Amino acid sequence: MPCRATSTPARTVRLPDRPPRVRAAEPLTVRSGRVRQAGRLAQRSWRHRSRRFVAEGPGAVREALASRTSVVEVFATAAATARHRDLVELAATGGVTWTQVAADVLGAVAGTVTPQGVAAVCSFLDQPLADVVGRGPRLLAVAVHVRDPGNAGTLLRCADAAGADAVVLAGHSVDPYNPKAVRASAGSLFHLPVAIEPDPLAAAASIRTGGLQLLAADPAAGTDLDAAGERGLLTRPTAWLFGNEAHGLGADLLAVADETVSVPCYGRAESLNLAVAAALCLYASARAQRLAGPPAGG
Amino acid sequence: MPCRATSTPARTVRLPDRPPRVRAAEPLTVRSGRVRQAGRLAQRSWRHRSRRFVAEGPGAVREALASRTSVVEVFATAAATARHRDLVELAATGGVTWTQVAADVLGAVAGTVTPQGVAAVCSFLDQPLADVVGRGPRLLAVAVHVRDPGNAGTLLRCADAAGADAVVLAGHSVDPYNPKAVRASAGSLFHLPVAIEPDPLAAAASIRTGGLQLLAADPAAGTDLDAAGERGLLTRPTAWLFGNEAHGLGADLLAVADETVSVPCYGRAESLNLAVAAALCLYASARAQRLAGPPAGG
Repeated sequence: MPCRATSTPARTVRLPDRPPRVRAAEPLTVRSGRVRQAGRLAQRSWRHRSRRFVAEGPGAVREALASRTSVVEVFATAAATARHRDLVELAATGGVTWTQVAADVLGAVAGTVTPQGVAAVCSFLDQPLADVVGRGPRLLAVAVHVRDPGNAGTLLRCADAAGADAVVLAGHSVDPYNPKAVRASAGSLFHLPVAIEPDPLAAAASIRTGGLQLLAADPAAGTDLDAAGERGLLTRPTAWLFGNEAHGLGADLLAVADETVSVPCYGRAESLNLAVAAALCLYASARAQRLAGPPAGG
Repeated sequence: MPCRATSTPARTVRLPDRPPRVRAAEPLTVRSGRVRQAGRLAQRSWRHRSRRFVAEGPGAVREALASRTSVVEVFATAAATARHRDLVELAATGGVTWTQVAADVLGAVAGTVTPQGVAAVCSFLDQPLADVVGRGPRLLAVAVHVRDPGNAGTLLRCADAAGADAVVLAGHSVDPYNPKAVRASAGSLFHLPVAIEPDPLAAAASIRTGGLQLLAADPAAGTDLDAAGERGLLTRPTAWLFGNEAHGLGADLLAVADETVSVPCYGRAESLNLAVAAALCLYASARAQRLAGPPAGG
């Protein structure tokens, strides 16, 4: 997936020989400009000013490098550099600078005192919602005013697993580039497109131009997932709307949805957490769509 | 559900009049014996020595009081006492002492500096696995060596929502009375029976005596949930085995399971988090069992 163009393209210092060498000429310290700039990306305002964020840990760095669009540079300890030769190779192949640093420097980059030894500075990946809708998606997850970064990241991971075409973060939703959200997404941030749309009603209108129905996940809905499946609702191209953890979806969004649908509760729990409810909805749609086969016009 | 007998029954100081009065005769301090004893319940060793734990926040305290089996006493700030008259009534009806305390005292009881103003000291609720199996359950969730308290609590919540008959914490699984687990269960700890069995193979053998099949959730399984449903596997009385977050289920448990089943991944995510995968498995069984109707012999 092509990412939105940024003003700073990824560095292209291709390493000439095998095994790849890592940049270690002038040891960086926690006071070095590059390190301080990376460390500031823990703050949302700095992330959005530079349109960059940090992905930490070998799993996330692997997915970032494999996505071939996002990584600006990688910092790693000597131990992590020795342990993850595959990542060093992957960086070299992609022309991404890999800089070996001391543990305290990596901590300053990753914003945590016990990082897993490797962190990548990445460019933002989000795409305009119109571009996402223009590609004819069949399944979207739309988070509206979702506030918890862990929930946003887990939603990305679930949407990826369910084969959704994209995730839309609408309204005052948490920043998907928040370190906790990146971690919770377990690499899925680099797998499927993310769109950010501050106006949830504009997002709903845009999605509808793509011919998708809007299903609002709402615990108070009269139709539950099982009944929606029996009625054939789940086979259609669908954007699922998921609301805020505490307040759910607002009346405005419930009003524009084609249907409201609840996750059935067979026991006594009053609610499910957001990511679990979203996973159940997305998987129900994915399964119904697969059983129904490809769309008639597609 | 009756809880396992404890050596210390709940206090039965019934309040004589309406509106109920709250105990405030001798103001407790953070150094008072009752407060220090409650505060020690943040440690697993103290919890297991006294077979007591702390449930914090109005939601958990409401479910604990409604369960009528578990609450030893309630501590609350003046503000929370004024705000939650329904809980004060519920405590009075159940003969449970409600003690109004200063905010720092409540913090010492709840083990957190920003508690929601009310916390209950509760007796352990877990039941012998043989008792659980003896009641003829149709759906069990078995967590094996699950280490994260948030995952254990969320699993309880999901199992409750899916209408499971009980949750079994097997092997070196996290303590379900850990404060983070209690919080993540969102009251479900008080809704459905929990059994603790340190030997996972003994748990499997015990469950099998109840006539349940053992389905092991395993990402490497050749049969996925969709295929299992098509083969009619999911309508039978089932205990789902869910493994450790990092290592999954061991070979010994995979060997004793009747089938191994994966959650299908339609996209590129490498895995799902434990609670999400468990919710998808449990809901698939619950739905299949409901569509199939009650068991022939039941």
